[in-house]
Amino acid sequence: MNAEIITIGDEILIGQIVDTNSAWMATELNAIGVQVVQITTIGDSPAQLVDALNESKKRADIVLITGGLGPTKDDRTKKVLCEYFNSKLVMHQKTLDHIIDFFNRRGMGVNQLNKNQAMVPECSEALFNPVGTAPGMWFEEQGKVFVSMPGVPFEMKRIMIDHVIPRLSERSGRGKIVHKTVHVIGIPESMLADKLENFENNLPEFIHLAYLPSPGQIRLRFSAFGNDEALLKNEVERQLEMLHSIIPEAIFGYDDTSLPAELGKLLLARKETVATAESCTGGMMAHLITSVPGSSGWYKGSVVAYANEVKTGVLKVSERALIDFGAVSEAVVMQMAKGVRESLNTTWGIATSGIAGPDGGTPEKPVGTIWMALAGPDGVKAEKFTFSKDRERNIIRSSLTALNLLRLELIG
Amino acid sequence: MNAEIITIGDEILIGQIVDTNSAWMATELNAIGVQVVQITTIGDSPAQLVDALNESKKRADIVLITGGLGPTKDDRTKKVLCEYFNSKLVMHQKTLDHIIDFFNRRGMGVNQLNKNQAMVPECSEALFNPVGTAPGMWFEEQGKVFVSMPGVPFEMKRIMIDHVIPRLSERSGRGKIVHKTVHVIGIPESMLADKLENFENNLPEFIHLAYLPSPGQIRLRFSAFGNDEALLKNEVERQLEMLHSIIPEAIFGYDDTSLPAELGKLLLARKETVATAESCTGGMMAHLITSVPGSSGWYKGSVVAYANEVKTGVLKVSERALIDFGAVSEAVVMQMAKGVRESLNTTWGIATSGIAGPDGGTPEKPVGTIWMALAGPDGVKAEKFTFSKDRERNIIRSSLTALNLLRLELIG
Repeated sequence: MNAEIITIGDEILIGQIVDTNSAWMATELNAIGVQVVQITTIGDSPAQLVDALNESKKRADIVLITGGLGPTKDDRTKKVLCEYFNSKLVMHQKTLDHIIDFFNRRGMGVNQLNKNQAMVPECSEALFNPVGTAPGMWFEEQGKVFVSMPGVPFEMKRIMIDHVIPRLSERSGRGKIVHKTVHVIGIPESMLADKLENFENNLPEFIHLAYLPSPGQIRLRFSAFGNDEALLKNEVERQLEMLHSIIPEAIFGYDDTSLPAELGKLLLARKETVATAESCTGGMMAHLITSVPGSSGWYKGSVVAYANEVKTGVLKVSERALIDFGAVSEAVVMQMAKGVRESLNTTWGIATSGIAGPDGGTPEKPVGTIWMALAGPDGVKAEKFTFSKDRERNIIRSSLTALNLLRLELIG
Repeated sequence: MNAEIITIGDEILIGQIVDTNSAWMATELNAIGVQVVQITTIGDSPAQLVDALNESKKRADIVLITGGLGPTKDDRTKKVLCEYFNSKLVMHQKTLDHIIDFFNRRGMGVNQLNKNQAMVPECSEALFNPVGTAPGMWFEEQGKVFVSMPGVPFEMKRIMIDHVIPRLSERSGRGKIVHKTVHVIGIPESMLADKLENFENNLPEFIHLAYLPSPGQIRLRFSAFGNDEALLKNEVERQLEMLHSIIPEAIFGYDDTSLPAELGKLLLARKETVATAESCTGGMMAHLITSVPGSSGWYKGSVVAYANEVKTGVLKVSERALIDFGAVSEAVVMQMAKGVRESLNTTWGIATSGIAGPDGGTPEKPVGTIWMALAGPDGVKAEKFTFSKDRERNIIRSSLTALNLLRLELIG
């Protein structure tokens, strides 16, 4: 069973709002084995909606429509649907009672526009909306299902959860989908593709693998389709084990997680702490870590040492090393890691110093040259990386790569 | 002139990622007078792409396609486009040189998958991508334009800005467009709309004003349409002067700028420096500042004092104040600002301490309670704000609001 989502709203087409409804709906639909084949966003125009309905029913068994059901004049979805299904608008008493109650409870009168919201096409079934005034509407025609819902996210979600998902789940007898996401760091996409060539070629037909790269890391998404959910899960697990044997160190987590979240779990288990000293990453390591709720349990803080005098003053980097080797050097980054570990009194210290760009490069140290160091109970080590010319990307890649140094150390 | 956006990616259809590219593209296209009529999201299937291309060219003059150009197997967009336009793949030398250089600079070899990225359909024009390895491709057929771009947001944006927007802007013959963006901080959107009601009502017909809010700030975008560019510019300037007289302190800059960039200009002109001490903002102030190229000329660094012992150790906050008032208090945030100014030896010190959420609130200090302080040559002052329950939003709002304290001080 498959579905198409139609999102209505000029505000999306002018870029004023990002359509987050569709991703939420797609996740819920996939979870009950309904595959989304297309998401179509159109403007507030009746002709566009009619075209979209005609096209979508060729592609999908279920058409879910959001938007265009509010009380204002420019919301014409209901009228268009009523004409599309050759029906007429009738009063839905339960919804009318709810609307009157809804406004009365707020000490407000009910005007005709509000009452009109309780009118639904006679051929449709109204889906009660306890958190708003516009009900959802369920249409069936020639074996196809059409559902219209308000565009306000929490109203749409409530109608989906209360009505749409349970009904569709019952109907979807055809096949399950099992997803698993693997988070990978430390291997560029093309090298990963090389390493996984045989593995990919040997994947069963019913398992699809997608690469989802972002700066500094790659997510690998497995999707398995079939009737027997337990079997699908088993087969995906089996493939994950094989994947793990090919790139054991590069995998840092599964499904909803992040590198700092995984680092936090490792540190908490060992009752250890970390601090960061940042030059080129300029606070990004601290930001990534403090975005993890509960990170105060293992993270003490960061010294963003942008000026050399902060490196010498707060982090106790020697003037000599700065003069002899420059700020972007093995010697300095090692002293930074050591310095922050000592001054913030943590088990581990991570430091970065590099040329993030777009300017500041030299022939010996081109833009993208990043030194990182890790200081711990057994001493300090450093590593040099050469990234791109893009400042934003270099900052995020350097931050993740530096955090990964500690992860690799902790997993041995 | 109108456009359709086709977004390719199974990961969007299963709800794993939200399509933010389309909203960005729609905003840019609208800004040059190109109206987006539909956004279509499809899966990684050749047949779906062919269908979407056939449908979209009926609706739009320009079809912009993102996604499916990476080096891995599941990326088939280029092959499909090549067949669709009856062309064959040829090597694009400039892109090949760039790819080889791209990998060599990272000390990595180039494999065949990488080299294949430099192959483009003979009938297309390759759009150079300086920040990635997959070029954009520009096709023309029967008066319609088709552009294919990588789905990675910063690569797509770079190709749009460097190539697509300038070309389309030239073609869009409905007169000239003059844009001016005004950056506003410190006034909530609804209050700003109230203040500007008369101003907006008196705007000439040919000038359109759009509110573009983001956490902590609002951009006001003026778009003037007409034939006489000089006249349009004059009229926009006249309106900006009027706007400035209504909200003089709230405007911090125009067009491509940011609050930290403007703060930097003010500090450089006075030969002054600043440092930050961050608790709840967790490095975000440092990140925003160090994202400005050249910020090392006026910014010395940050102490991200997540643990209280960092507040006492590095920032010299008194144990007494932490015990008596807690970390989120006027006394502590003032000592943090003073401490970082002294220990990093700067003209100014800015500090934040608050409860970003989602947890950690109390009846006296609910989630969203944020203290900020500014220390300078004449002493320290603090201010309390109450923001929302949303952690991400609170972090960015707090960071911008704290930086704005110094801007307001500097402009008197």
